[in-house]
Amino acid sequence: MRTVIGVMGGASARDDVERDAYEIGRLIAEQGWVLLNGGRNAGVMAASAKGASEAGGLVVGVLPSADTDGASPHLDIAIPTGMGDARNAINVLASDVVVALPGDVGTLSEVALALKSCKTVIALGWMPGPMLARYYDRGLLLDAATPEEALSLIRRSLPEDRP
Amino acid sequence: MRTVIGVMGGASARDDVERDAYEIGRLIAEQGWVLLNGGRNAGVMAASAKGASEAGGLVVGVLPSADTDGASPHLDIAIPTGMGDARNAINVLASDVVVALPGDVGTLSEVALALKSCKTVIALGWMPGPMLARYYDRGLLLDAATPEEALSLIRRSLPEDRP
Amino acid sequence: MRTVIGVMGGASARDDVERDAYEIGRLIAEQGWVLLNGGRNAGVMAASAKGASEAGGLVVGVLPSADTDGASPHLDIAIPTGMGDARNAINVLASDVVVALPGDVGTLSEVALALKSCKTVIALGWMPGPMLARYYDRGLLLDAATPEEALSLIRRSLPEDRP
Amino acid sequence: MRTVIGVMGGASARDDVERDAYEIGRLIAEQGWVLLNGGRNAGVMAASAKGASEAGGLVVGVLPSADTDGASPHLDIAIPTGMGDARNAINVLASDVVVALPGDVGTLSEVALALKSCKTVIALGWMPGPMLARYYDRGLLLDAATPEEALSLIRRSLPEDRP
Repeated sequence: MRTVIGVMGGASARDDVERDAYEIGRLIAEQGWVLLNGGRNAGVMAASAKGASEAGGLVVGVLPSADTDGASPHLDIAIPTGMGDARNAINVLASDVVVALPGDVGTLSEVALALKSCKTVIALGWMPGPMLARYYDRGLLLDAATPEEALSLIRRSLPEDRP
Repeated sequence: MRTVIGVMGGASARDDVERDAYEIGRLIAEQGWVLLNGGRNAGVMAASAKGASEAGGLVVGVLPSADTDGASPHLDIAIPTGMGDARNAINVLASDVVVALPGDVGTLSEVALALKSCKTVIALGWMPGPMLARYYDRGLLLDAATPEEALSLIRRSLPEDRP
Repeated sequence: MRTVIGVMGGASARDDVERDAYEIGRLIAEQGWVLLNGGRNAGVMAASAKGASEAGGLVVGVLPSADTDGASPHLDIAIPTGMGDARNAINVLASDVVVALPGDVGTLSEVALALKSCKTVIALGWMPGPMLARYYDRGLLLDAATPEEALSLIRRSLPEDRP
Repeated sequence: MRTVIGVMGGASARDDVERDAYEIGRLIAEQGWVLLNGGRNAGVMAASAKGASEAGGLVVGVLPSADTDGASPHLDIAIPTGMGDARNAINVLASDVVVALPGDVGTLSEVALALKSCKTVIALGWMPGPMLARYYDRGLLLDAATPEEALSLIRRSLPEDRP
């Protein structure tokens, strides 16, 4: 089974956030890992898919909708779920490690669900609130200032049986 | 259709939080509203179910499990989903207003999903982080110090067609 | 916890099927059981909700949509799921016994999922195909020609700890 | 986006059914299509994944469990959902065309949900019951006696924008 890195973040995002999303997508693809995200043609989803795809990587999009309308054109594999936000729970279960870029409450729900499932979450370019302090202490929540730093944290966080 | 108030909060909770949960359950029942929660026999779920049930109210528990093992004995109607944390999305969609007591990342995911669905969330006895500041500004996120204050905020937040 | 009887069947249904749906809804309510169905204002869902409601029973509708648009006006408690057909799995898990009236592939999926979860299914007014023959043999699938006969089969099928 | 062919069928299967599953998996991979199934290391799921994988194809498994325990070793990408049978709805939405081999009620639920979502279903090596006759008439349900015949039906059934 291939290593799957989830990349979460806002459906509307600032330019610098989209640049980070593109870059972490590219870096993930270069390691030979699969990039998984929410699949929509918007914000962090679109930018990270583009970055991974242009670097020759494989991109899986787990969509809230029942079809592929509104999906990023950079997905290799679209998984329409027809489940709306309930698909956020799948996004995190299907990821070996989750990278979370700045976003709104959708992203926050994914960070929370990932930590609940004991997945490592790497916050790239933002600071989750004090509510999550205990997860820093447990080493499940990590901060990265740059995509390169996030990549290095992913490497350290992967289960040992993942290449 | 009856008005449904969701009560979310930690599966393990301090004594004072459980007292608040019991009390808001009681108050909800006294208004003739249905109390809906995550259904487990633990923490805020168990205490709020007990409060509503002992006041003669109707209690619906939307369970993560596929059966009723581990359900609160104070549920009138158990809805086993077999969907794990993905059922959190249902909890908030099925609630007209959500009351969130202190909890961990499960509760945080429900707060986030509720706001994403444009449901009013009343934080009872705790302060969500600065990440949610914009939802205070939009009037979707409200603070209550006591169960009585939460009740008064629920009343003001109910859609006009809800009694 | 109250006994919950699921009633499934087509969103478009012949007059005689709707009459049976109304009648089984009424009989379920008269036993003090909760009626649970797919919640939409159509076919077997609408008719069974009306029958139970007019007999003073409690009706729970587990909706495919994220809100209550298109819900039967006879629901007491609406559970919007926003999950489309994936909610069919919840319908059957939340029912102690499932009564299936004639329907199309949505109904068939619920019959199949119910049997997979080892729930007793009572086919009221139709004959499931030979594919399900082994479930007759195992006593999980039962035939009823009339609502009264279905009622008597529900009684015999309820777990012993259900009143 | 790549073309995704869903292969459904029993978790326990006769030898000849497993041979057909292996073979249709191989044929799907040879066309450059992605094979998607329920991901478990059992029956039709395991055999079709093996067939596709050994032919160099890409295999996606949408698992009922929250982790990869019990997954086929031939998956390239595992999508644990933690949703039990509710993931059957995703299996069919994520497939451009569904091939259904002999199976039990889990398979039947997938056939039913696929037809409800207007996906073409190719029954390979068995005859769905008379309940589904109207879907033969509409051309959504097709019979194939052999994997080669199923392949030819898949080709004719793919949306025009799928290679």
